[in-house]
Amino acid sequence: MTQDKKLIPLEKFGMKVMSFGFISGNETPVIWRGPMIMKTIQQFVMQVDWGELDYLLVDLPPGTGDAQLSLCQTVPLDGGVIVTTPQEASLGVVRKGIEMFRKVNVPILGIIENMSYFTAPGGERVEIFGHGGGQDEAARQGIPFLGEMPLFTEIRKGGDDGVPVVVSQPDSLPAEVFGQIAQQLQEQLAGSV
Amino acid sequence: MTQDKKLIPLEKFGMKVMSFGFISGNETPVIWRGPMIMKTIQQFVMQVDWGELDYLLVDLPPGTGDAQLSLCQTVPLDGGVIVTTPQEASLGVVRKGIEMFRKVNVPILGIIENMSYFTAPGGERVEIFGHGGGQDEAARQGIPFLGEMPLFTEIRKGGDDGVPVVVSQPDSLPAEVFGQIAQQLQEQLAGSV
Repeated sequence: MTQDKKLIPLEKFGMKVMSFGFISGNETPVIWRGPMIMKTIQQFVMQVDWGELDYLLVDLPPGTGDAQLSLCQTVPLDGGVIVTTPQEASLGVVRKGIEMFRKVNVPILGIIENMSYFTAPGGERVEIFGHGGGQDEAARQGIPFLGEMPLFTEIRKGGDDGVPVVVSQPDSLPAEVFGQIAQQLQEQLAGSV
Repeated sequence: MTQDKKLIPLEKFGMKVMSFGFISGNETPVIWRGPMIMKTIQQFVMQVDWGELDYLLVDLPPGTGDAQLSLCQTVPLDGGVIVTTPQEASLGVVRKGIEMFRKVNVPILGIIENMSYFTAPGGERVEIFGHGGGQDEAARQGIPFLGEMPLFTEIRKGGDDGVPVVVSQPDSLPAEVFGQIAQQLQEQLAGSV
């Protein structure tokens, strides 16, 4: 296999990253039909020079379409992590995602509630998108609940600036929540290997 | 055509609505490959008993894949409306969407900035996801900017409860913004027919 490897991932903060955007250029749309999505996912798994990895994390778009299915059929997955916002409209999509993973025999490692609440400058907690839907759904489905991530301007800023909040503000609440989630996943996966 | 029509849309507040969810059941995932997406879009346009419509508005998922392409190839579209959040990560996706619409010759009616800012209980304005990225991008691309929609708990609640904020609180700020956006689109489309 090694001699075919061509794509070099971007490396930062000890993590290697590969994205459609690196190849296609940032403003050119990738107008790709399903079979091309499948081919690219295979290429990203097989033909990127990943080297030794501890984990390979694949960020999927919402839904249950070609990208999700193709990934499940390309590599054996240790598990899926479900990210939802608190409100019912999001949970409706999440239930379908859980059902899809079950149908293709991918274990579900847990649910994360994103945008879980917001702390206003005055200190009041505001539940803009509701609160607790992720935890309720996890309990209902017998799935671990991994944590709730608040709406936090610094997370967004870090994404735009290219420095994650766990690096720029390692003692902040969001960094702590990210750490707790990562640790739970690590423990679950250590048990599954 | 008429005798083939079978799917009856749900009707509420003078609007008819059709969704994958009505057919597939709420918890069953629609694990559909691209060609099935295309077939279903054709079916939703041709085989739903829409009756006389003023407008047909199609809410698409983010991205530039099978759903977007199939729609553009199934019906002649009067135009596309681009919805973004303020931050750079979202604008990157939006630029690709704009480029895709241009490639398939669909006019772009404008850009809307969603989650534009939040008014905390104490009255402070907080720009959780940044602010102004949608307007800047519209100016850069020579596309009309249709308006900025604040983060507003009542919009989410209305979505979950099935009563839109324009009905439940017609004098609220979000209802006013929705009205202004609709009016601009109506004026543009009146000019194009």
